[in-house]
Amino acid sequence: MCRFLAWVGENRYLDELVFKQEQSLVEQSRNALVGKTPINADGFGLAWYSDHTNPCFYKDTNPAWSDANLRQLTHHTRSNLFLAHVRASTGTATSRNNCHPFGYGRWSFMHNGQAGGHNRIRQQLDAMIPANLYEHRLGATESEAIFLIAYGEGLETDPIGAMLRSVERVETLSRQSGALPYLRFAACWSDGESLFAARYASDRYAPSLHYRECEDGIVVSSEPLDGNCGNWNEVPVNTAIETKGSDIRIHPFQPKVSFVGRDVA
Amino acid sequence: MCRFLAWVGENRYLDELVFKQEQSLVEQSRNALVGKTPINADGFGLAWYSDHTNPCFYKDTNPAWSDANLRQLTHHTRSNLFLAHVRASTGTATSRNNCHPFGYGRWSFMHNGQAGGHNRIRQQLDAMIPANLYEHRLGATESEAIFLIAYGEGLETDPIGAMLRSVERVETLSRQSGALPYLRFAACWSDGESLFAARYASDRYAPSLHYRECEDGIVVSSEPLDGNCGNWNEVPVNTAIETKGSDIRIHPFQPKVSFVGRDVA
Amino acid sequence: MCRFLAWVGENRYLDELVFKQEQSLVEQSRNALVGKTPINADGFGLAWYSDHTNPCFYKDTNPAWSDANLRQLTHHTRSNLFLAHVRASTGTATSRNNCHPFGYGRWSFMHNGQAGGHNRIRQQLDAMIPANLYEHRLGATESEAIFLIAYGEGLETDPIGAMLRSVERVETLSRQSGALPYLRFAACWSDGESLFAARYASDRYAPSLHYRECEDGIVVSSEPLDGNCGNWNEVPVNTAIETKGSDIRIHPFQPKVSFVGRDVA
Amino acid sequence: MCRFLAWVGENRYLDELVFKQEQSLVEQSRNALVGKTPINADGFGLAWYSDHTNPCFYKDTNPAWSDANLRQLTHHTRSNLFLAHVRASTGTATSRNNCHPFGYGRWSFMHNGQAGGHNRIRQQLDAMIPANLYEHRLGATESEAIFLIAYGEGLETDPIGAMLRSVERVETLSRQSGALPYLRFAACWSDGESLFAARYASDRYAPSLHYRECEDGIVVSSEPLDGNCGNWNEVPVNTAIETKGSDIRIHPFQPKVSFVGRDVA
Repeated sequence: MCRFLAWVGENRYLDELVFKQEQSLVEQSRNALVGKTPINADGFGLAWYSDHTNPCFYKDTNPAWSDANLRQLTHHTRSNLFLAHVRASTGTATSRNNCHPFGYGRWSFMHNGQAGGHNRIRQQLDAMIPANLYEHRLGATESEAIFLIAYGEGLETDPIGAMLRSVERVETLSRQSGALPYLRFAACWSDGESLFAARYASDRYAPSLHYRECEDGIVVSSEPLDGNCGNWNEVPVNTAIETKGSDIRIHPFQPKVSFVGRDVA
Repeated sequence: MCRFLAWVGENRYLDELVFKQEQSLVEQSRNALVGKTPINADGFGLAWYSDHTNPCFYKDTNPAWSDANLRQLTHHTRSNLFLAHVRASTGTATSRNNCHPFGYGRWSFMHNGQAGGHNRIRQQLDAMIPANLYEHRLGATESEAIFLIAYGEGLETDPIGAMLRSVERVETLSRQSGALPYLRFAACWSDGESLFAARYASDRYAPSLHYRECEDGIVVSSEPLDGNCGNWNEVPVNTAIETKGSDIRIHPFQPKVSFVGRDVA
Repeated sequence: MCRFLAWVGENRYLDELVFKQEQSLVEQSRNALVGKTPINADGFGLAWYSDHTNPCFYKDTNPAWSDANLRQLTHHTRSNLFLAHVRASTGTATSRNNCHPFGYGRWSFMHNGQAGGHNRIRQQLDAMIPANLYEHRLGATESEAIFLIAYGEGLETDPIGAMLRSVERVETLSRQSGALPYLRFAACWSDGESLFAARYASDRYAPSLHYRECEDGIVVSSEPLDGNCGNWNEVPVNTAIETKGSDIRIHPFQPKVSFVGRDVA
Repeated sequence: MCRFLAWVGENRYLDELVFKQEQSLVEQSRNALVGKTPINADGFGLAWYSDHTNPCFYKDTNPAWSDANLRQLTHHTRSNLFLAHVRASTGTATSRNNCHPFGYGRWSFMHNGQAGGHNRIRQQLDAMIPANLYEHRLGATESEAIFLIAYGEGLETDPIGAMLRSVERVETLSRQSGALPYLRFAACWSDGESLFAARYASDRYAPSLHYRECEDGIVVSSEPLDGNCGNWNEVPVNTAIETKGSDIRIHPFQPKVSFVGRDVA
């Protein structure tokens, strides 16, 4: 499990959310209040949009709290749309290539969750990634695979539908492997204009996901950054949100998993 | 604050203590039970004695739990005397040079504690290090300074007395700076034959320190490794222990701090 | 391209070959004399055999010349069979998981060379890895894939034949991709008892590979460690050597690539 | 020895100079053409000025050519004044704290050169750093000490004179130690408005330093970035340059070293 946050709205210094909150992302890296993994210190990452169409990534493997570069960069960088993530590995190695957010073209993606039996299904997962995207498969996480599969499913033109189809395919695979939990999924992704987030699980334990509407934008976060749930909206299970400017649209996010107890490949 | 353990006795694989205990050192790195710093993930280090007179050091900056090298090395290395440490920085940077144990010649040293106002006294602390040892001052911690000052005070011939005099000098400096706590000190050091440990604080909060006599040797540890205090002896405050083979001697360790409310330099 | 060396014979401190030679492996990391890549500073790795059946691995991403741990470990570790490697990436990221030697069970493997069009064939390469070994596919190099495919081809019982079949399969794939050079391969592998090495290329540029018979064992190395070719035997192209104790056997290593100018899959 | 470059002028993406030149800084990190150290792979660093008065720093210990973050950040960051450095250690460890540029307040500083007998004089060098700045002494290089001593000498109001006095003091110390070369110094420093650079050596081997006037600003660089010396001005030995906008002023930079063969402290 991991923790993340994202911002879309007016230009804002990244450290305002990453560091300068009671329950900031860096605070969550050492003391997450929600969920079963209080420590999220297996690397971190940022993606922010500025001049170019493609976002800028900064990732490293140390705990977020001790990285002087992270403090510097977030203090000096402003963006109207950024994603930030701290990782707690569910098995794969601590390496920059396994740090979120992942990117391809103008898209960025980050995830908190897991696919059951990841080690058993990883080869099949890798085979699901479109051939022309495989050279962008840099690490070994199921999260990166979900993203690249979603891109192949049409993320450019159908950002929520493509992600839903990717989740369906991965959950189907996971169910075949028989390892619980089949899929837990809280994610956030963007093309630099809109910000998308979704929350889903194949069991009762969908990872936490909240958002808050501010005067000048919207924050999406695994945990309320001020430690005050009253100010925040929980994203309901089986739901995606899409936000652009101050506009928020709610979509269903209900994978149709075709698995019925036997091999469906 | 930090956590550490040491072994002296028969040859033993390091991972038996570093990994394979209910409250192993690696478990303490993410969930210390005693003290105020549950996470000790700002680097780690090992020193073990084998063929050569000087010990072998392995240190790195990542959390102990995610370092594949640490798992490999401790699984394949046996030693009759070794020290292992996980660090929680009290201010200085996460860097290999700030990781314990520190070494000079055949000596190794590791520390859990702090000197108050370290930033204010660091330059004076550096000036206390004997000139011929200064090139071995690699990092910026007060711990390394205490060790090198102790070496200059005669560690080779008077291992406990020299450490005591170093602690006295550093506490005097710290008291001059006026920053609390003046000194908290639990430490372990060795020349490859005997293992020494001491526990002291200028206030009521001496860091935890325990030892256990086993059939084939003695373990010193910040916390009981089996989570069962009944099997362990607490090192009393103001006390040092000296162990060689199965023999344990208890010594007083009571610094005579000469500070009386004004500058004593 | 990379550089490597291996030792089989009497127990020997690793630093004698890794550091203390005129053209030691660390010297080769910054100034290789043979081949087109003078700098091999994209990580390094060691595998050595001692008490356990499985070897111990130490890998890191910094240049070999600046890693204090490498200097310590090689100075204090003796082994009768070890492998050491410094890496120059041919495209994949600098990460511990991409550092050689690779391991599975009692086997270790390291490689100097490349498969043409690696990015184009990587997904198919991944699909060739036996399903039960895929969870040991930690990085993204073709070298690791060659090793795991060889294991699947029967490395345990036919160490040279299995490697040959793996090389055949990978070269066939590479030829299909159409990217030159199809395959260049100098490699060294071991089960902890025998040491194997082979040299091959699909073009005229097989990577350099030498060995030297010493009084107490045999060194295999990319370059003569004393800078004096007269003391060394060059492994001929299309040849494998097998060495156990002071015995050296020469085997042909001539892949039968079935590709005849069109898709053979 | 090291390599560096700096830019002052119109806003410019950092990668235009750091990566996209025939003899870019990253190319110099693996193949410097001038001087005796072709490889500069012991860490790197950036400082750039943007919204805040204080510059933003990014430093890491890997070779510049393999750091994905460096490629990302320089591609997405524009600045009208930035410094960039690749390091070849002359003895101190590879660590972020030893990477240039160094900073204090709005000032940044980077250096190519060395003080002879650094290990012998380091403690005295440390003692020269003003007490109130010592907590900003993060690493162990003579370069950082020169910078902090210069700050204490009045860098804020007399940027060139203060640096000259620092160099004088450090060279005096180095001469006392008796280790050659006493001082070699090519450096670049800035307050975010003006850019300063100086070149000096106590022997005939002052490190290389060039600058080029472009249409929209001025580049200072250890080596001509286009590999064409004809387009560049060499900074003469014993000379400092000061540049603000398109204006360049030349100053003498001639330390008056008071050492006459005996201890002058």
